[in-house]
Amino acid sequence: MSDKIYRVNMKDLSYKIEDVPEEWKGLGGRGLTSTIVATEVDPECHPLGPNNKLVFAPGLLSGTIAANSGRNSCGAKSPLTGGIKESNVGGTSAGIFAKLGIKALIIEGIPEDDSTFYHIHITKEHIEIHPIPELIGKGNYEVVDYMMDKYNKKVAIMSIGRPGEMKMLISNISVKDPQGKLRSHGRGGMGAVMGSKKIKVITVDAEKYKEAHIADPEKFKEANKVFTKALKENPISGEGLPAFGTNVLVNIINEAGGLPTRNFKYGNFDHAEDICGETMAENIKERGGKTTHGCHAGCVIQCSQVYPDKEGKYLTSGFEYEMIWAFGANLGITDLDLIAKIDHLMDDMGVDAIETGVTLSLATETDLIEYGDGERAYEILKYEVNRGTPTGRIVGSGAGNLGKLYGLVRVPVVKNQGIPAYEPRAIKGQGVTYATTPMGADHTSGYAVATNILNSGGYIDPLKKEGQLELSRNLQIASAAVDSTGMCIFVAFPALDDPKCLPALIDMINARFGINLTADDVTSLGENIIKIEREFNKKAGLTNVDDRLPEFMKYEKLPPHNVVWDFTGEELDSVWSYLDEK
Amino acid sequence: MSDKIYRVNMKDLSYKIEDVPEEWKGLGGRGLTSTIVATEVDPECHPLGPNNKLVFAPGLLSGTIAANSGRNSCGAKSPLTGGIKESNVGGTSAGIFAKLGIKALIIEGIPEDDSTFYHIHITKEHIEIHPIPELIGKGNYEVVDYMMDKYNKKVAIMSIGRPGEMKMLISNISVKDPQGKLRSHGRGGMGAVMGSKKIKVITVDAEKYKEAHIADPEKFKEANKVFTKALKENPISGEGLPAFGTNVLVNIINEAGGLPTRNFKYGNFDHAEDICGETMAENIKERGGKTTHGCHAGCVIQCSQVYPDKEGKYLTSGFEYEMIWAFGANLGITDLDLIAKIDHLMDDMGVDAIETGVTLSLATETDLIEYGDGERAYEILKYEVNRGTPTGRIVGSGAGNLGKLYGLVRVPVVKNQGIPAYEPRAIKGQGVTYATTPMGADHTSGYAVATNILNSGGYIDPLKKEGQLELSRNLQIASAAVDSTGMCIFVAFPALDDPKCLPALIDMINARFGINLTADDVTSLGENIIKIEREFNKKAGLTNVDDRLPEFMKYEKLPPHNVVWDFTGEELDSVWSYLDEK
Repeated sequence: MSDKIYRVNMKDLSYKIEDVPEEWKGLGGRGLTSTIVATEVDPECHPLGPNNKLVFAPGLLSGTIAANSGRNSCGAKSPLTGGIKESNVGGTSAGIFAKLGIKALIIEGIPEDDSTFYHIHITKEHIEIHPIPELIGKGNYEVVDYMMDKYNKKVAIMSIGRPGEMKMLISNISVKDPQGKLRSHGRGGMGAVMGSKKIKVITVDAEKYKEAHIADPEKFKEANKVFTKALKENPISGEGLPAFGTNVLVNIINEAGGLPTRNFKYGNFDHAEDICGETMAENIKERGGKTTHGCHAGCVIQCSQVYPDKEGKYLTSGFEYEMIWAFGANLGITDLDLIAKIDHLMDDMGVDAIETGVTLSLATETDLIEYGDGERAYEILKYEVNRGTPTGRIVGSGAGNLGKLYGLVRVPVVKNQGIPAYEPRAIKGQGVTYATTPMGADHTSGYAVATNILNSGGYIDPLKKEGQLELSRNLQIASAAVDSTGMCIFVAFPALDDPKCLPALIDMINARFGINLTADDVTSLGENIIKIEREFNKKAGLTNVDDRLPEFMKYEKLPPHNVVWDFTGEELDSVWSYLDEK
Repeated sequence: MSDKIYRVNMKDLSYKIEDVPEEWKGLGGRGLTSTIVATEVDPECHPLGPNNKLVFAPGLLSGTIAANSGRNSCGAKSPLTGGIKESNVGGTSAGIFAKLGIKALIIEGIPEDDSTFYHIHITKEHIEIHPIPELIGKGNYEVVDYMMDKYNKKVAIMSIGRPGEMKMLISNISVKDPQGKLRSHGRGGMGAVMGSKKIKVITVDAEKYKEAHIADPEKFKEANKVFTKALKENPISGEGLPAFGTNVLVNIINEAGGLPTRNFKYGNFDHAEDICGETMAENIKERGGKTTHGCHAGCVIQCSQVYPDKEGKYLTSGFEYEMIWAFGANLGITDLDLIAKIDHLMDDMGVDAIETGVTLSLATETDLIEYGDGERAYEILKYEVNRGTPTGRIVGSGAGNLGKLYGLVRVPVVKNQGIPAYEPRAIKGQGVTYATTPMGADHTSGYAVATNILNSGGYIDPLKKEGQLELSRNLQIASAAVDSTGMCIFVAFPALDDPKCLPALIDMINARFGINLTADDVTSLGENIIKIEREFNKKAGLTNVDDRLPEFMKYEKLPPHNVVWDFTGEELDSVWSYLDEK
């Protein structure tokens, strides 16, 4: 049976199941969410008003046995950036959407009675929408437990915490992973959009349904073998990530002088040793946790982990480099266990670790918190943000807005979104991505760290300008395509270095749908997605001036290399000028 | 002796006195500040960073005996709107600048030692810059008294209060009036720019200097007579404004259904009677205050007043319609004495009455304050904003930012600046001005209320779209020119209706400089100013999407006329499209 579009209107709590329009049939993940948002959402609308839409779409390969294909995309006009947003996630939702034949879920409107929050429950070609007052104000873990009890352990669960209910811009959408823990559609304030539509939780039950339909199962199986082998044999996806998680990066980026420290004042951190992946792995082993763990079924990289406290009790999982950097080097917490405790709290609250960490680090330039005061950070989150006090509202609004309230100049944001864990002055290819991706400062949109630091796809000196514009452009195009397949971004490492990897991935897509894509088609797909997204942003009022890093990085030298951000506006504009004119 | 450019660099506390470049010679007021900002400020710079500049320039006729010529312009890149800003003020500074031969004062840079605040003292071709720690944290009234004691009663004083020191976006720059009371460069966060440069107060001493030089004194005197007569004979500038102050408007706008009430939910206010100009005038007469008072020497309109409390003790002066509307109808305070008390407090703090009032009214949609709670409003200002608490920072950041923190949709701002006291849905010409002026929502940029409501310059039905685009465009062009002369905006009323008024004004400019401007030249001047400002804004990243009213006004009907904002984007873009292409 063919896939369908599931459409919910929160204004009158109605729904429709629609055929997939011809022009959307070849799309999935980011390609589909961005196309739907660009087609159906007025770019001038208020992102938290009745005319924005919240769209979910699994990747093209989600729901199959393909390794690492479990990413689900979420799209909307972002209340944080004011532009189009796609934020993708692991967990179980992508596979379940795909198995049920949900090509995309589109949520429109705002309830006329906004005095409560709602639960949307989706089964095969049927949707129930009803108030769920008993979950208002609850954390994500309680919501997940409640829904697993109500339905079954395998039901897909997507929910928001209190900050999302309060439409805070740091709020994300949490998604249950295979063990009932959480992953997040992290960036861009997607939780606030869900909150504006008064939706506390969405569940999708596909228990009775198997894998998504495959047109040529034999060819698919064959290609998946080659693809899986490439993933496992690559030194990064096959060794570094499984051994130390993404947190393997602390020492690497610190040594490169590109670990943003003390609100982007320095490029390395004296206490990197205390928070690095090696220390983390040691703690986990000593305490009986798990160093490897997959965020979704079918993951062969297993970069996630289960991190216990000193007594061996569960503390957190999905303990990522970005989180550890944000609260470690940038905010100054040197106690990894405290960072883990904050990580768990933030999962429960449903707030983006990057935006929250960047905001708190920036707040060390105000009287709200001092650098290194982890207890205060925990308190602010638990007792201020989660309760919506004035201080909580300030921190909950993200770094850009906090900067405006306090008249700060050293505000590390692009398109009002906080800059992640790689210093753009010292890893210039990554800076080009932050500036020019339609998403606002986002490392996954074009991970130039790969070639600037990890020698993946060759090597381009991170401190020099040469080659960075092209590198970022090519990675952004490839990432847009990968984000449409449902594949985890880490497939990029073997894809850049193993000539068999990308053809195998394309073979799987062809075998799944019985089509004949080529590598050129994939490039065109990526380019087309970025073109659509840039056009939306332009209509929403963003310009080339938004494709810039913060001004202070142009005149403030970053130790230890004492480098500034030296790309001109014209150079940055050249990244996409050919595409805009197409 | 010819006029000079006075230039201060706060980075090294140095100054220069420069000749006026040829191309600036014919400019004054807004025409000059906008030209200087557009020429010298990088449009992409951070408005509170080292690369913004703060520029002051008196009008072309300031410092002469011309009636109502005492307006001084202040320009910068606005930290509130992100675009270019001109904000002009009465008080004594314009005349003193002109008498001393200061064509413009340009302040650049930020001190390397930012641990203190500075005092800039200007005399003829000499500037002193030194720390003034004893005034840090003081209110404007204390600063004014201090400086009058230190120098003399006539010294020009321009200062910021605590919110300006804290770089809050609602902060303004206060200017001493002839009686030692205060007027303000109100809008756009100019106080934050002054605060970012660590300047607490600027004084200008011109005691020994007379009137500005006049090329043809006889012709000037003659023209001024005609001009003054026109001002005095006009029913608005000659009768309504002197009798009731600008607050004459409460009843008029309320009856038109265009008085924004309860955060722009309604177009009229049940308690208008309690706060209207007639009630105000009655109170003043009963209590022995003054119904008429000029904000600057040479004013023949005298729309200001001195408002005493029930015991006859001074409460406030310069008690304007905009202020009374903001805290009255829009925030719900019905006690005019309490509004007066808040007005005085805000003068002392140095915050913009419109932005502050719009922000507090919007805050009635949160848990910060309830509609009608004037005591709470006073408390928030005095104990939160003035102390920089988290609540104070939120309110101090203006309506647009407060809206972002609380996820609000009904946020009445254009270019992030609060909409003033005329409902754009019910007074559509004014709405066109709010949307399309480069200044952000600002009533003085093109006061269509004149022709929509006051039958000045003809009549155009405020509820209909016909004729509004042209009306607003013509008024915006005329206002840009008037804002360059140093004239108060109220000269617009006789200028629109008395055929002798505008030629007399032009004659005065010609007599002052010995030149031969025509009415067409004045139109060209106005057009050119707007063109320069729009070009700056474009380079700063603003687009036609910023030339829009808030989306909620398009779908929420405003009682009592049940009207929505129904201009399309294309229609609004047509206002300046011919100019952008020139």
